[in-house]
Amino acid sequence: MASVARRVHQVFGADTDVGKTIFSTALLLASAARGSKVAYVKPVSTGAQQDMDARHVRTFAPQVPTRTLVQFSEPVSPHMAAAMQASPDEHVRDAQIVERLRTWLYECGMEAAIVETAGGVHSPSPSGSSQADLLRPLRLPTILVGSSVLGGISSTRASFESLRMRGYDIDVVLMFTSPYYGNDTYLAQYFVEHGIPLFTIEKPPARVADTPTDVARMQTYYQHTLTTMAEVVQYLADQHARRYASLDTLGMRAHQHMWWPFTQHTRVAPQDVTIVDSAHSDFFEAHAPGQGTSPMMDGSASWWTQAVGHGHPRLALAAAYAAGRYGHVLSPSVAHEPAVRLAERLLGHDSSATLAPGRGWASRAFFTDDGSTGMEVALKMAMQASVRRYTPTVMSSATLARTAPGRRAGSLGGRQQREWHVLGLQGSYHGDTIGAMDACEPSVFSEHVAWYRGRGYWLAPPALRMKEGKVRIEVPASDEWGESQCLGILPSIEAAYRMPARLQSELAQRYVRMLNKRLEELVLVEGHRFGALVLEPLVMGAGGMIFVDPLFQRCLVDVVRSREDLFSLSDPPLRDACVNRDADGWRGLPVVYDEVFTGLHRLGFAMGADVLGTPPDINCLAKILTGGVVPMSVTLASDSIFRAFAMSDQKTHALLHGHSYTAHPVGCQVTLETLDMLDEMPTKASWDPAWLERMSHARRLRGIMSLGTVLKLELESSTGGYASDAADDLLRTLRAGLCTS
Amino acid sequence: MASVARRVHQVFGADTDVGKTIFSTALLLASAARGSKVAYVKPVSTGAQQDMDARHVRTFAPQVPTRTLVQFSEPVSPHMAAAMQASPDEHVRDAQIVERLRTWLYECGMEAAIVETAGGVHSPSPSGSSQADLLRPLRLPTILVGSSVLGGISSTRASFESLRMRGYDIDVVLMFTSPYYGNDTYLAQYFVEHGIPLFTIEKPPARVADTPTDVARMQTYYQHTLTTMAEVVQYLADQHARRYASLDTLGMRAHQHMWWPFTQHTRVAPQDVTIVDSAHSDFFEAHAPGQGTSPMMDGSASWWTQAVGHGHPRLALAAAYAAGRYGHVLSPSVAHEPAVRLAERLLGHDSSATLAPGRGWASRAFFTDDGSTGMEVALKMAMQASVRRYTPTVMSSATLARTAPGRRAGSLGGRQQREWHVLGLQGSYHGDTIGAMDACEPSVFSEHVAWYRGRGYWLAPPALRMKEGKVRIEVPASDEWGESQCLGILPSIEAAYRMPARLQSELAQRYVRMLNKRLEELVLVEGHRFGALVLEPLVMGAGGMIFVDPLFQRCLVDVVRSREDLFSLSDPPLRDACVNRDADGWRGLPVVYDEVFTGLHRLGFAMGADVLGTPPDINCLAKILTGGVVPMSVTLASDSIFRAFAMSDQKTHALLHGHSYTAHPVGCQVTLETLDMLDEMPTKASWDPAWLERMSHARRLRGIMSLGTVLKLELESSTGGYASDAADDLLRTLRAGLCTS
Repeated sequence: MASVARRVHQVFGADTDVGKTIFSTALLLASAARGSKVAYVKPVSTGAQQDMDARHVRTFAPQVPTRTLVQFSEPVSPHMAAAMQASPDEHVRDAQIVERLRTWLYECGMEAAIVETAGGVHSPSPSGSSQADLLRPLRLPTILVGSSVLGGISSTRASFESLRMRGYDIDVVLMFTSPYYGNDTYLAQYFVEHGIPLFTIEKPPARVADTPTDVARMQTYYQHTLTTMAEVVQYLADQHARRYASLDTLGMRAHQHMWWPFTQHTRVAPQDVTIVDSAHSDFFEAHAPGQGTSPMMDGSASWWTQAVGHGHPRLALAAAYAAGRYGHVLSPSVAHEPAVRLAERLLGHDSSATLAPGRGWASRAFFTDDGSTGMEVALKMAMQASVRRYTPTVMSSATLARTAPGRRAGSLGGRQQREWHVLGLQGSYHGDTIGAMDACEPSVFSEHVAWYRGRGYWLAPPALRMKEGKVRIEVPASDEWGESQCLGILPSIEAAYRMPARLQSELAQRYVRMLNKRLEELVLVEGHRFGALVLEPLVMGAGGMIFVDPLFQRCLVDVVRSREDLFSLSDPPLRDACVNRDADGWRGLPVVYDEVFTGLHRLGFAMGADVLGTPPDINCLAKILTGGVVPMSVTLASDSIFRAFAMSDQKTHALLHGHSYTAHPVGCQVTLETLDMLDEMPTKASWDPAWLERMSHARRLRGIMSLGTVLKLELESSTGGYASDAADDLLRTLRAGLCTS
Repeated sequence: MASVARRVHQVFGADTDVGKTIFSTALLLASAARGSKVAYVKPVSTGAQQDMDARHVRTFAPQVPTRTLVQFSEPVSPHMAAAMQASPDEHVRDAQIVERLRTWLYECGMEAAIVETAGGVHSPSPSGSSQADLLRPLRLPTILVGSSVLGGISSTRASFESLRMRGYDIDVVLMFTSPYYGNDTYLAQYFVEHGIPLFTIEKPPARVADTPTDVARMQTYYQHTLTTMAEVVQYLADQHARRYASLDTLGMRAHQHMWWPFTQHTRVAPQDVTIVDSAHSDFFEAHAPGQGTSPMMDGSASWWTQAVGHGHPRLALAAAYAAGRYGHVLSPSVAHEPAVRLAERLLGHDSSATLAPGRGWASRAFFTDDGSTGMEVALKMAMQASVRRYTPTVMSSATLARTAPGRRAGSLGGRQQREWHVLGLQGSYHGDTIGAMDACEPSVFSEHVAWYRGRGYWLAPPALRMKEGKVRIEVPASDEWGESQCLGILPSIEAAYRMPARLQSELAQRYVRMLNKRLEELVLVEGHRFGALVLEPLVMGAGGMIFVDPLFQRCLVDVVRSREDLFSLSDPPLRDACVNRDADGWRGLPVVYDEVFTGLHRLGFAMGADVLGTPPDINCLAKILTGGVVPMSVTLASDSIFRAFAMSDQKTHALLHGHSYTAHPVGCQVTLETLDMLDEMPTKASWDPAWLERMSHARRLRGIMSLGTVLKLELESSTGGYASDAADDLLRTLRAGLCTS
């Protein structure tokens, strides 16, 4: 892919007819006067006098090569001209224009170039999109030509904001002097506050009918602009040098000052740092020191946060709207529209919305800041609901004696006091705060954390792996399964997720039998006291993209909900179950679905519950939720869970958890926008089943699996888990060549 | 304060001369034709033909009362007209104009009103601010008049974005038909995608010289617009009804669907919910069902997150810029400009910046999402640094035998394995995730949390309280101090924070003696194994605004750093200290300052270290950090702490902690902007010392204290802590009447 390393500036106008071509020509002349090799390019041009701007440049700066990439003959706006064409040409697509421009800038062989846009910042491109959006992937440094007419202060400021909102850096503002309205004086002050210099030149002379005279007058005019324009060119050159000096060293500086998450710094060399100058759609615009920027696929969707593409203007506008309307307002006992609308929508009270993760089961939305805090809340909710249901409120005198203060220190009746445990699956991951970590089995993530103590039991899960066109259900050697073995074979990936059919299978009965037996052992023999069942539906991401057999997860939920007798054995154990729930309450254990990674169409299904066929009592969402813009998480809970806290009017019975930015308006607003966009998407991306089937025959691969946008390739040698480096080479290869269907 | 409940719309233009007055008049006529009592108001007008717009309205809609609030005779933009006035009038201040408008709208007694702005959205107000900023506190529902001329698509879209960025809701777009350029067709499509209808009418007839004819022609024209305008008025009325129906029920709906943080829901009635329609500066614009909105002071600065005021356009633009440039990009081994620049700035490498919390001591910035996650990281850093320094790497055979696997389960040599503990102060609070909770002493916050177990020892701190003009240093009854007592009296609040003088005092020696003795007992007798000293400098916020004696905190840090001999006693205890640090490493224990609440000028000092006179090894910032817009936290660490993780090239030695949105560009960008704004502030707000002195004599108050913007009033009866309700009444009283100096 071509890099753009040269000094290229795009010229945007605060309005039509503010002098973009005049300023472009004057800049080109000043550049050429310094001896620079400089070119002029007009991405899109229309009209009877087609190519008019380029012709002006050729007339007054004949030494400058010019190019118009897309021309329409109709004298109307590009979007109308494009619509009028009999067979719409390929090059009207935005991406096509951008690639032609990128290539031309790379191949023109000049030191510098001026890219002149048409009309104002939002004048339509051939596709109808705004020009500011059209050119966004390149994010060229920008020259804004301000307006010196009445109203020009407003149009210049508004244009500036629209450009900034798309992530553009404006290097300078140029405009004609404005002696009557004083626009230049006002705007010079305004832009200096934004660190941007403003330069002015006189207006060009009025046109005259006689062409030679007209040309001569303009030539004289351009002569007069040379001094100022030389200053501008010098400033632009300096700014360009500063930008590149900063970009060239950015990786090294990050290497020196950042403490990156999940990174052993001694293994990263300064030159290995990926310098991301901007991001657009599925790509980073990555910078190579000394070379320039080029697109690089964001292979993990930035830790699976992206769903609608990087740098989307709808989300930027939504974020700005909420920031402008509120900033932030504290949450307790407060109602603000973005949070309330979002809660209603997530809970399914907005009938026009398709994607509604809590519809039909959840009654409350609790907001926190990320998946880890969302899971801490989920665990507190679940655990406390169990504690309150399963702790005897009226104790016998014998029990009271055994739990008397003097006998209490760390033990009950001589026994060590038992922890409340989670029941989960091996390979699960719920976040990095201590509570979320404690809900996961010991692993390399927790090995060196002094305060970690896994508090739970984690069953070995059957996992799916496609090899040679068939999907095998395999289990590791474990207490649950004995030897590692294959429990069955399914004809396709799709078949594995047809829950109604699979519930009728022999394997379902085997799962249920095993789970009943194992749970009895865990509680009655091994003495676990469980407070929650915690699952990542379908795929355990951070644990190594384990595609868990969904039938097993469904059976586990069913068995847990049917065994209240086991979990109700209180501590100290009373042989009579201690149950005080109402008819519609949660059963057995509160079931938590951690859908931080798996939810919101990431796996091709809206939510895990859509496949498992049974809702949780609590679920946790993050990552995609906010459209990949800012952190926010939501923990949804059923009414029965909520009532375990709203059980009295005691403050201390409440869920005493909160973060300063709880339900922050910016997060809520971008989430609402994201959910709209997800609902509007006609189809969600997924990997081609035929390609997957073909790949499953590859010799180097131990197996392959895919759901939604997630693709898992298992190498024969990949046994090292998180600490292994085996995948690094492959990742580099894949990054270069793959794209989703 | 006056409420705005009526159907009021403000009219903004996409440019000057787009027909704002024509559309205003047409709307007024259509309203009047329905029998509505409707008024017209022009906040600011200038020019020889002063009051021209209002006069047009009076001519064609004589039944409509009109009002111009601020008039300038000079025929120039309001900011120039205001500057020309000999003695600048009071009413040129933005706040004054807004209050006059609010009052007029309240008192005019009409059902509806049209507020017509001047020029475009950003045309300057008398103070020079943009009109869109000027009117922002009222956040009136908006009519945008689009532009039908060449370039009008761009100016209309850009104006729309500037309005949205300030949190305005645009109800309708009105514009003249645009048969040649097709602006109306394009924009109708564009706005329908934003849920906004666009209505068009024909352009008015060209003006003629003969006034009666001109008036007659315009009258006919307005007649022709009536049908369309009646539709618009109906739509606006419906929209108004929907808005009010939504606002009126918003509190009830929040009550029904939100699970608020730190809230016992059974104690909140639906009508107690604060409905916040928007926020500006230090105020919410709060809605009272059936009445309308009015300003309400945000007394806690929204949980102490606000520093530069709600809804600041600079921060909204910064957020939009980063969202548009990146969305988000994953953090590990990646460099993006906002994060790197922010790290450099926080660490003190930007010489132009004043506020640089890590300058001189910190070498690394680790980003997370909130104070709680930031403190989890701080604790992991500190604890792991201690574990690595103080765990014997070469064990004697006797030690090895005692720690052999078979003897390991929960005990060493028959003793229970000791936890790594924090050393802290009673009343501290570090967040709500389990790790952060465990670093705090047991309290009402943790009482009902199954997984909480305080892992530390918390000293009883001396606290400051001003009464009758003097500041008393008081300690509670405790192991440290025996009886509760007054340790000393200082002449003023300010004197308490003069560290160099206080370090020479007798009390300093007393603190040092006590701390040495107590630490010896805690380690040698009580068997605590400490891994970190964790402090909130100066004020413990959530613990009840405890103003800790800074001299005590300073002495504690000094003593901890001087007693490596105590902390180096490893587990199992080796009588020889196990120290393997380099000369510039941390000493004794890693010292963590939790400055989530206290940092960044909240307490009148830039940072706690500025008062304590000694830097931490780790510090944690959040709340103000991001200017009160989005959650983000940073944990700064010294190089010596960093090297405890970058000690090898093993991945598992790294700090294996991270969140999806680590160092998200939006957070970094608004933080950079906030730090700029804090640096630019000439003075930081604080409470008037004379007023504080006076209040300290009040009979109902047990004491008073203040630092920076924090004011603490202790009532004689306030003994109930978090669970108490005593403060509720006072808060209501204060909310109504107080303001900062």
